[in-house]
Amino acid sequence: MTEETITAEAGNDALAFCEGARSLPVRGVRAGRQFAVQDWVADEVPVALEYNGVSHAVMLATPLDLEDFALGFSLSEGILDAPHELFAVEEERSEIGITLHLEVAGGPFARLKERRRTLTGRTGCGLCGTESLEHVARNLPVLPGGPTWRREAIGRAMSQFCQLQTLQQATGAVHAAAWCSAEGEVMWLREDVGRHNALDKLIGALAANGIEASTGFIAVTSRASFEMVQKTAMAGVSLLAAVSAPTSFAVATAQRARMTLVGFARQQDLVVYCHSDRLSLGSAAGGEHAH
Amino acid sequence: MTEETITAEAGNDALAFCEGARSLPVRGVRAGRQFAVQDWVADEVPVALEYNGVSHAVMLATPLDLEDFALGFSLSEGILDAPHELFAVEEERSEIGITLHLEVAGGPFARLKERRRTLTGRTGCGLCGTESLEHVARNLPVLPGGPTWRREAIGRAMSQFCQLQTLQQATGAVHAAAWCSAEGEVMWLREDVGRHNALDKLIGALAANGIEASTGFIAVTSRASFEMVQKTAMAGVSLLAAVSAPTSFAVATAQRARMTLVGFARQQDLVVYCHSDRLSLGSAAGGEHAH
Repeated sequence: MTEETITAEAGNDALAFCEGARSLPVRGVRAGRQFAVQDWVADEVPVALEYNGVSHAVMLATPLDLEDFALGFSLSEGILDAPHELFAVEEERSEIGITLHLEVAGGPFARLKERRRTLTGRTGCGLCGTESLEHVARNLPVLPGGPTWRREAIGRAMSQFCQLQTLQQATGAVHAAAWCSAEGEVMWLREDVGRHNALDKLIGALAANGIEASTGFIAVTSRASFEMVQKTAMAGVSLLAAVSAPTSFAVATAQRARMTLVGFARQQDLVVYCHSDRLSLGSAAGGEHAH
Repeated sequence: MTEETITAEAGNDALAFCEGARSLPVRGVRAGRQFAVQDWVADEVPVALEYNGVSHAVMLATPLDLEDFALGFSLSEGILDAPHELFAVEEERSEIGITLHLEVAGGPFARLKERRRTLTGRTGCGLCGTESLEHVARNLPVLPGGPTWRREAIGRAMSQFCQLQTLQQATGAVHAAAWCSAEGEVMWLREDVGRHNALDKLIGALAANGIEASTGFIAVTSRASFEMVQKTAMAGVSLLAAVSAPTSFAVATAQRARMTLVGFARQQDLVVYCHSDRLSLGSAAGGEHAH
């Protein structure tokens, strides 16, 4: 249910089916009036990742674009180096969740097993593949000088963004990550209840479709935290624009990875947190309004 | 930086110090005008948890109320059953993060070691303590019938909420979780860049201060996902009110735990997703406005 549908006091009854969402009866109050409607709620399902038969992780995700998710997660976590190392993904659905059986090349699998063997225990939750502080800032690439981005392109992408979030429009509960051309056209977009998952799905979709990710930038509906910067850097993208704020660790990480980090990107407004040299703020100037 | 501070085009320069935040130089554009200011960004630091010398997890968190975090995480993840099982928390700060050394009772520690031993490998990220789908819905308590909550109390809590989020006001990047009395007074509030952490800190603060959590309800600034419902249930609280939407798995979990789950709680408006019998919607009625 989004704010608009509550206003209409009819929920999204009109939708017969919404992929990635479920219809539920709900009650509520809006502007002093009670209502009872059928409403759409974003789907969240435990998704287990298995590499060549070995359990690796369970995440809560929206069960859409799971092949993209499997590939994107594997790449951004450094388990695979290239898409061709993933031979197959088989999806097994059960009442308690979904298992993604990944068949991967021998080299990366041996490395994954070695990584697991050398860990003294297991990580309950938190940073992926991280058990001690020393492992946090693993293998972060430093991005090349790359293209100069234009503020107008970010503004264009942000304007298109909302309309393209179909699941968000139905449920009001999901994040999106989009890959945009240098001109600011949203070319690829993925949604998920989890912002990390949305970004992993996007990175997987780009890799699976042979897109040269570095030629565009990434926009996300969420805040920019450390992991969002790390995943974007792993994908070789030199600009991350977030609708909301960055964290201090995200800024420090972007600085180190030589990534231009933009926050509060809304229509033509934005704040640049580091490597602003790569971003042309354009015609905007003190006292003058942008065109 | 929040929307308001950008409007002022002066950032939060006026703040000399903000706990949990860092000051950075930023550039940007707002309403066609360029600006360059010092701004506050929420602190995000890798925090490692060690139980009796054994590494357990690393999470990204805001370095505030870390003792509450240590206790709350231990309780809501079922590592400890009661606050008195945590003897001491020692904080060790270094350049790469913070290690929390927890000294815990022998019983829970033996259980934790056994849990780790029986796991075939390690979990990269995702659900805490979860490696396969079977472990996802571990030991979820079923809440007793409990008190009947009033919509007006939720409305009161939501109105107080924003003003009490000091770190959010400075940075625009953090979540909050609050415990509210049956009348809707916000009694305890904790903030963090992570919504799970904010809730764990709150649960820890309640436990450390001997608050009978079941006599009040919990309000969160974020969406209601599965883990938020699970942690709230572990704390014995029968109503969770979220500012944003719930997910399908959160609703299913709340249904099972007999928790009243409220979403889109904003001022006097709200949507009830399950166990609405425990919530009195009050004077609001078709056509009539609430007082």
